[in-house]
This record gives sequence, C-alpha cells and structure tokens, in this order.
Amino acid sequence: MKAKEIMDKDFIYATANDSIYEIANKMEKFKRFTSPVVDENMRLIGWITSFDIIRGLMENKKLIHEFMSSKDEVKYMHENDPSRLAVLETSKSRLISLPVLNDEDKITGVIRSFEIVDTLSSLYEVKVEKLYLAIGKQLKGVTWDELMDASAIIYKRTTGEDINLKEYERKIKNSTFGEAIWATGGLERFFVGLIAVGEIVIARRIGKSRK
Amino acid sequence: MKAKEIMDKDFIYATANDSIYEIANKMEKFKRFTSPVVDENMRLIGWITSFDIIRGLMENKKLIHEFMSSKDEVKYMHENDPSRLAVLETSKSRLISLPVLNDEDKITGVIRSFEIVDTLSSLYEVKVEKLYLAIGKQLKGVTWDELMDASAIIYKRTTGEDINLKEYERKIKNSTFGEAIWATGGLERFFVGLIAVGEIVIARRIGKSRK
Repeated sequence: MKAKEIMDKDFIYATANDSIYEIANKMEKFKRFTSPVVDENMRLIGWITSFDIIRGLMENKKLIHEFMSSKDEVKYMHENDPSRLAVLETSKSRLISLPVLNDEDKITGVIRSFEIVDTLSSLYEVKVEKLYLAIGKQLKGVTWDELMDASAIIYKRTTGEDINLKEYERKIKNSTFGEAIWATGGLERFFVGLIAVGEIVIARRIGKSRK
Repeated sequence: MKAKEIMDKDFIYATANDSIYEIANKMEKFKRFTSPVVDENMRLIGWITSFDIIRGLMENKKLIHEFMSSKDEVKYMHENDPSRLAVLETSKSRLISLPVLNDEDKITGVIRSFEIVDTLSSLYEVKVEKLYLAIGKQLKGVTWDELMDASAIIYKRTTGEDINLKEYERKIKNSTFGEAIWATGGLERFFVGLIAVGEIVIARRIGKSRK
C-alpha cells in the first residue's frame, strides 16, 4: 500500500502571510492539530502545529511566517512511498501527521495518526471465521466440520479446555484475528496452531483416500 | 492486552485553577496536545486540548476551569478495559488521546495514538522467517529445505514467478508479516498460501513414512 492510498486528501493549509487568527480558527473548526504552509503553487514551505499557534499568541505574533517551522525541519513523504514508512516515522518521531508530496513537491495529502490506526487495525478486525472459510476452500476434500473438529482438538491440546466442534465454531464466529492472536499468545503461536490443525485434517484426508 | 499495559503513565495534568499560561507551557514543553484536569485526589474532572488553549488565549481566559471540557464530555476508559477498545474509540471518534481511570476514578494513564500505532504495528513488524521457524518446529520430520521448497512451489503457483528454495529463503529473511500480507493481497490469501505449503509438506512426509 502506498502513502497516497491512506492519506487524507481533505487537508487544511495556510500560506506564509495568513494571520495567526485565521489559521487558529481553521484548525479549531476542522479539528486539525497541525497544518502545512504552502506557496502559491501548493508547494510545501513550512509547517505549524497548535503548539506554534499557542506560542505565537502568547508572544503576540501576527503572521504565519513569523512562527512556522521551515520545510527542512519538517518530516514528509512522497505519495508513492510505502505507507509502512508513515507508520515507522509516526511511531519513531512521535508525529501526529505527515505531509505527503508529489513529484513536483506539491502537497497532495496529509497522513494523520487516525489514518494509520484505521489501516493497521483493519487487519486486527478480520473475522477468524473468514480465515477458516478461506482455508476450508483451499483444503479440497476436507469438510467444515472436520476443520472445526481438528481445531477443537488443537484447542484442547494448547489450553487444556475440552470443547467440541460446535463450541469451537461459536468461538470463532465471534472473534477477530486480533483477539485470536492475543488469546493464543502471539502471532507465531497462532500460526503454529493453524498448521497443527492442517496436519490433522490433511493426515486424515490422506488416510481416507487410501482406504 | 489491557488498557493499562499500553497506556503512557508519564502523563501531564492540570488542576481547575491553574493558569492558562502554566498549562500552555507544560503542553508545549512535553509535546502533549491534550491534558486531563484533575481534582486534589487525581480524579478526572475535565479535559483540555490545545484547541481549548488557543480559544482561551484569543478570548483572554485566565484559568483552566473557564474553558475546559467537563468530565461528562470526555471519552475515557477503565484500566482493565481491553486495549482494543482504545483502538476502536480512537478510530471512531478521531481522538488523539484517551484518559485511563482506575476503580476509584483516579487517572492512572493516558493512551495516545502513538501507543496505539506502536502496539498495532508490532504485529506487522514480525519477521516472516520467525513464523516459518515456528511452523518448522511444529511439523516434526519436515526439514527447513522441504518447507522452503514447498513455499517456492506455492509462490510460483500464485505469482507465476519461478523461484527456487534458496531464493524463497532470501525473500522471507528480509520481509515482515506486514509486507507479506500486502504482497499476497490480504490476510486470507496469506493463510491460504501457508496452508497450501502445509498440504505439500505433510503429504510428502506421509508419503515418505509409508515407503
């Protein structure tokens, strides 16, 4: 996924000669803690945060260029950069938003921590049942009940809790990938459990076909 | 995972009679866009954001209670709530931070979008190689090379790109779970690919043991 696929294209911006009141009102109205500062061609020339506004108000600054950060102090990305970079940068530099530029240095979007949380959490919110349905489709000749039964066996083996295939089915109907990972104790364990389920159903299928 | 496991315990706070300048300076110094307002027992009574400070400065407010939001307007969590709730709430209400309370309504931490990004992205940063090592350990009697060979076969089947086991091994040495998911086109496909690898190695192992 690229930066341009997750960025917010509906961003606010200011120019260097806007008044501090103008941008303060705009940031409040649109609930943005930061704003890019652009030239007449929408090229990024600076950046302001609500801290800059607060400092500017306390020191009686009037225009944006009096208190903005200049472009070379700003972290930004190219729109074709992988969105993973935004995640790493946000996390490392504790940024709340990152401007995204195109080949002409024009700003085309802003990635905010919300977009990152949305993108990252979409993975966690995938239903475990959907994963099982996809796996069942791949494993030709293995029925849904056989898959659930093998899973119940592995579940018992790892947790000690005795459940049958119907109970297991109910469990995964209501759980997400994120919950399953936390419940099994991490991604590796989740995969290992899944492969163990595969081992059972595949061995049984081969056993059946040889009878 | 619970809210208290990911929250920032090193948070700033203000009391209702602090001056606007005091909290403005504190928020700037510690780079916090928000601050809880507490009573003398550290119980949450309100909330301020840098927007409130900006508005307060423009309207010549002096003390925090003149412009803070009251507790009933604030979203907060209990420290034993699942951290998933923080993710959902942050994403849904576009919050930058959420106060976390204990049983006595005292604030014990603040979850910020950074903590959420860190927590969520840790899953994406798991090395694919680590997953394979765990799977290899589970599949007794299957060698690492057999696992790589089966993966290269599935890789060819899904992408059309012909690679050998050594090339596949190099590929996973340098890639993360997040990249692998994006490369294969989603979590389900990634799982299906893995189960397909399992099918090959398990069938081969059973074949060998019957010889």
